[in-house]
Amino acid sequence: MTRISVDAFEALIRDQLPLVELFGIRTVSIGEGLATLRMHYDPSLLRPGGTVAGPALMALADVAMYAVVLGLIGPVELAVTTNLSINFLRKPPPQDVVADARILKLGKRLAVAEVLLRTDASDDLVAHVTGTYSIPPERD
Amino acid sequence: MTRISVDAFEALIRDQLPLVELFGIRTVSIGEGLATLRMHYDPSLLRPGGTVAGPALMALADVAMYAVVLGLIGPVELAVTTNLSINFLRKPPPQDVVADARILKLGKRLAVAEVLLRTDASDDLVAHVTGTYSIPPERD
Amino acid sequence: MTRISVDAFEALIRDQLPLVELFGIRTVSIGEGLATLRMHYDPSLLRPGGTVAGPALMALADVAMYAVVLGLIGPVELAVTTNLSINFLRKPPPQDVVADARILKLGKRLAVAEVLLRTDASDDLVAHVTGTYSIPPERD
Amino acid sequence: MTRISVDAFEALIRDQLPLVELFGIRTVSIGEGLATLRMHYDPSLLRPGGTVAGPALMALADVAMYAVVLGLIGPVELAVTTNLSINFLRKPPPQDVVADARILKLGKRLAVAEVLLRTDASDDLVAHVTGTYSIPPERD
Repeated sequence: MTRISVDAFEALIRDQLPLVELFGIRTVSIGEGLATLRMHYDPSLLRPGGTVAGPALMALADVAMYAVVLGLIGPVELAVTTNLSINFLRKPPPQDVVADARILKLGKRLAVAEVLLRTDASDDLVAHVTGTYSIPPERD
Repeated sequence: MTRISVDAFEALIRDQLPLVELFGIRTVSIGEGLATLRMHYDPSLLRPGGTVAGPALMALADVAMYAVVLGLIGPVELAVTTNLSINFLRKPPPQDVVADARILKLGKRLAVAEVLLRTDASDDLVAHVTGTYSIPPERD
Repeated sequence: MTRISVDAFEALIRDQLPLVELFGIRTVSIGEGLATLRMHYDPSLLRPGGTVAGPALMALADVAMYAVVLGLIGPVELAVTTNLSINFLRKPPPQDVVADARILKLGKRLAVAEVLLRTDASDDLVAHVTGTYSIPPERD
Repeated sequence: MTRISVDAFEALIRDQLPLVELFGIRTVSIGEGLATLRMHYDPSLLRPGGTVAGPALMALADVAMYAVVLGLIGPVELAVTTNLSINFLRKPPPQDVVADARILKLGKRLAVAEVLLRTDASDDLVAHVTGTYSIPPERD
């Protein structure tokens, strides 16, 4: 069972994570250990060369991991990223970017997730991300 | 000798990397293998819990690496991040965040840099970042 | 077409990478952008707590990436790891560990691969690894 | 005050981490949030090209982080690496490799450390490593 709905997750981040709005990030689905988010293309996301900037991709990946983790543990707002590692694989053209996140491990104290970033134009990945969230003990 | 000035770097990113403006990032100095940038505090940078959001820290670190790399190779706009790894160490209070970047290795094809993030309030690091930039061959 | 056979890869590392023998690592298969290796259990691989030591897992992952990269580019011995990031997910019991590597990107200068580590006892991952290999220009 | 001596740390790993012996790793010093270890050169550490192999460098770095963490929390054997990220900067010649580790953060549940690897021949780093150790709750 998913412990946070798309609507509840979007409400949480709308109120408390304004960057998500700045980046045009929308939650598509949150499932059991899975989440899909989409970053709507806007010229403000570009970097030199006309491709989508790395910080926008990292923001999308981080929010996607937050979605997949809260989908498993519920609205524990103070779950925080402790570590994120991204490999940029291909330059993303000026288009929407889709993030598919999945949980690799859910422990009592740490959750590890993987995020694949791609565009609609190709199955080729634009980036691969892994990250760790720390789950606060107070949630019990 | 530094191969890009603070003014030239700021002009480049003002035109071509609008995220930098969104995040309130300013270049303080670019030296020989060193760069310091500052992200001015704004409530739009916050995350649940009232601390500065991870994606804002990652954006600051990535731009700081770009500054230190261009300081060494000149205005090679198409130098791109291939990899970035961040450890979030302490929750940054709602304040400016300062990034001190330094080069770890400058090769012909890859540059590796380290970025330390801190606030003015404490010497304790809020995050430690390493990253790799790929330097395009066309620059010769 | 795979550009190095299992036998040729094993011969190369037997001669030039003695650590592989120390760790009991064997190449199971090398395919098109895929490779599977196995580290045979031996008590010398243990760490405090009686689980397989992290350095042994990292060695296995690194050699698996080498196999998948050489499978694509041929016996380019001087391809070298530039970056490796590992998340340890579960403590591996004292058993063989299997590494499934796959290529995420093969460029002219860089190859990025992912490795999943598991034991025969469970489908749960014991570790997730990503890494980058630098491909020397001289290979042309 | 350092909570584990060099002798006690060496005894612990001699008994329970045989890889350290295989790699010729010796503990030079353990201080307050600092540790220095040395890996004695042996031809079994080499990789194709005649430089020290990546897995040997990763093993040295991981043990150096273990030393710096146990130096702060005492002989908590079950502290385990959750994450390690390494950037290989220069090919290490066939010589001893020295690891200087320092703590970046010591929390109740996680410790983050940085390790710089170099040879005696040069101040240039051969690799830069960051890693996270999970500290078991049972230690109280």
